[in-house]
Amino acid sequence: MSRFAVTYRIRATDAAEARARAEGIAYEQTVEVPPDVVPPGFVRDEIVGRIEEIGPDSDGFRATISYSPESAGDDFHQFLNVVFGNSSLQKGIRVIAIDPGPEIRRRHPGARFGVEGIRRMARRPEGGLICPVLKPQGIGAEEIARIACLCALGGADIIKEDHGLSDLRTAPFRARVEAVVAALDRAELETGRRPAYFATLPGPFERIEANLAFAKAARVDGLVVMPGLFGWGLVSRIARDEALNLAVMMHPSLTGPFVVSEGSGMDCAVIYGTLQRLAGSDLSIFPNVGGRFGFTEGDCRAIAKACLDPNGPGRPILPNPGGGMSVDRAQEMQAMYGQDVAYLLGGSLLRHGEGLGAEIARMRRALDG
Amino acid sequence: MSRFAVTYRIRATDAAEARARAEGIAYEQTVEVPPDVVPPGFVRDEIVGRIEEIGPDSDGFRATISYSPESAGDDFHQFLNVVFGNSSLQKGIRVIAIDPGPEIRRRHPGARFGVEGIRRMARRPEGGLICPVLKPQGIGAEEIARIACLCALGGADIIKEDHGLSDLRTAPFRARVEAVVAALDRAELETGRRPAYFATLPGPFERIEANLAFAKAARVDGLVVMPGLFGWGLVSRIARDEALNLAVMMHPSLTGPFVVSEGSGMDCAVIYGTLQRLAGSDLSIFPNVGGRFGFTEGDCRAIAKACLDPNGPGRPILPNPGGGMSVDRAQEMQAMYGQDVAYLLGGSLLRHGEGLGAEIARMRRALDG
Repeated sequence: MSRFAVTYRIRATDAAEARARAEGIAYEQTVEVPPDVVPPGFVRDEIVGRIEEIGPDSDGFRATISYSPESAGDDFHQFLNVVFGNSSLQKGIRVIAIDPGPEIRRRHPGARFGVEGIRRMARRPEGGLICPVLKPQGIGAEEIARIACLCALGGADIIKEDHGLSDLRTAPFRARVEAVVAALDRAELETGRRPAYFATLPGPFERIEANLAFAKAARVDGLVVMPGLFGWGLVSRIARDEALNLAVMMHPSLTGPFVVSEGSGMDCAVIYGTLQRLAGSDLSIFPNVGGRFGFTEGDCRAIAKACLDPNGPGRPILPNPGGGMSVDRAQEMQAMYGQDVAYLLGGSLLRHGEGLGAEIARMRRALDG
Repeated sequence: MSRFAVTYRIRATDAAEARARAEGIAYEQTVEVPPDVVPPGFVRDEIVGRIEEIGPDSDGFRATISYSPESAGDDFHQFLNVVFGNSSLQKGIRVIAIDPGPEIRRRHPGARFGVEGIRRMARRPEGGLICPVLKPQGIGAEEIARIACLCALGGADIIKEDHGLSDLRTAPFRARVEAVVAALDRAELETGRRPAYFATLPGPFERIEANLAFAKAARVDGLVVMPGLFGWGLVSRIARDEALNLAVMMHPSLTGPFVVSEGSGMDCAVIYGTLQRLAGSDLSIFPNVGGRFGFTEGDCRAIAKACLDPNGPGRPILPNPGGGMSVDRAQEMQAMYGQDVAYLLGGSLLRHGEGLGAEIARMRRALDG
């Protein structure tokens, strides 16, 4: 059965230590017993990770280790468990690439909509997509719906709820979703256009299924999902559900520790690109360069490339940079990201008050001009 | 309503920068809009985080910020979202303490069993608990059950499945659990004793509820749950279910990036202690000092203290160190951890083959002697 491969950057003082650490990973991620205890035959020959390549890297060493799909099963959680579960607890090991191979690609077919599907949904066949955010936490459902209406009238392509709206007493999930959908209905009557609407999916765990069913019945187009909080399998569960047919916008809440330390965790192109595509996200939110997070232009380009690479797993998905976006930066951002990108417009948009629709229209002209 | 407080270690070159970063956190974790855009009244006065204390720290600065339970709602995911969701993406911010306060303690009452409940379950009223691990991945269900039987005959207190057993073709979850329970039934007939049995809960997401129901019907005592993969709300969902009445053993798979970088993430006592208690874990697995992970004695002592602190949230829970445990280290470990601890015995135990029961008995004598 075709194996999948993970490339790790490994801190080591010499090649011998690097090989010893790579061998440690190959056992740790699979059998988790010392080599002399591994049963011969299938377990030793197929299950134990195999070092396929190892050598020096610009920043230490790198090793590519292959694993059997028999280790990963059909569950996305277990796939991640094999990729990096226990070794994430070792210092100086970072996942820098994942090649899922044909069998894992078959088991995790990826995004239901992808770039093309989201463009159809938002009726924006070309050009960057404008994606304002409904917030802040603490205001009521009707006020959130009023902002949604202004965004729709201004020409937003996608309207997204802030990831912190949850199911708070001030604007409960169900009342809020119903109010926003009604506001978008009113705007559509006026303009003939309707943005795609992504509601933030709240917990607790035991209400997630009911919340999904409610969101579907209430006519949302997709959901903001936070795998760092809710687990990775939730993205996969939504993406695979043909009857539900809802899109997934991944929000990176609580995933920061994976990317901010360069010696451990995962490269941002892996966690916000490759893994999102495999799990089934249609849009991948990440902190934009020049915003209030420390992501570099190189980070953002690498994420966007991983989201859009035609050879990546599943459908290409939309990079969804957030933070520090404004009309003034539209040209610069377009030069950097190209056409296939959705721009989050957050807190600074709210500063325009009743004029926020006009600001979205200005952003549209800046992107199209 | 009584607020909860999070203490962050903040990298900054001077006090002014530290204060600016702390203010950034107070907004980022709640309203996520610039200060001038925050609506006056309830949102500004109650929702926005408040800097309660700020000052120099041995390693930079530390700031304690309080948040409203109105921001966190009833859902454990959202509580974590407020604690560290977006700020986790900033470099040089680390969560070093959480004081949940009375309202969050009420909403998240913690472990169903805790130290006392697990001791009753394992019929080990005092002394360290011995907890062998069933593995490796890739062997069949009957072979796993045979190892379980040897462990039970040897006097194990808790038998735990390896976190990588999942629902693989080689030993599917249901067949495996049934085989292990039958093996423990046989051992009980022989010895009159029965260890607590923790099966590893597999996904995918859409089968978790059915797997929980199956585990209950099959008479497991608890489940190995990995919040780093499955999300934090799953621990809470199991702990709160009175009818299910199953214990939770937290496994730290994929949580490594939170602890291995000292300048970001969370202190290990927070993630493996305080948060586990709030979420509802009964046992908290972490890498033991002297094993193959780089945890120090200080780390392990801090985790154990947070698990057992009588003033912590919910019931005290069992620290469950793993890695590098052996009979030779029993005295040293007991001196360090005291009585309330469960020792994982992993791969090295399997080296004893048919004699692994005798090795567990030796471990018992070493702990009791």
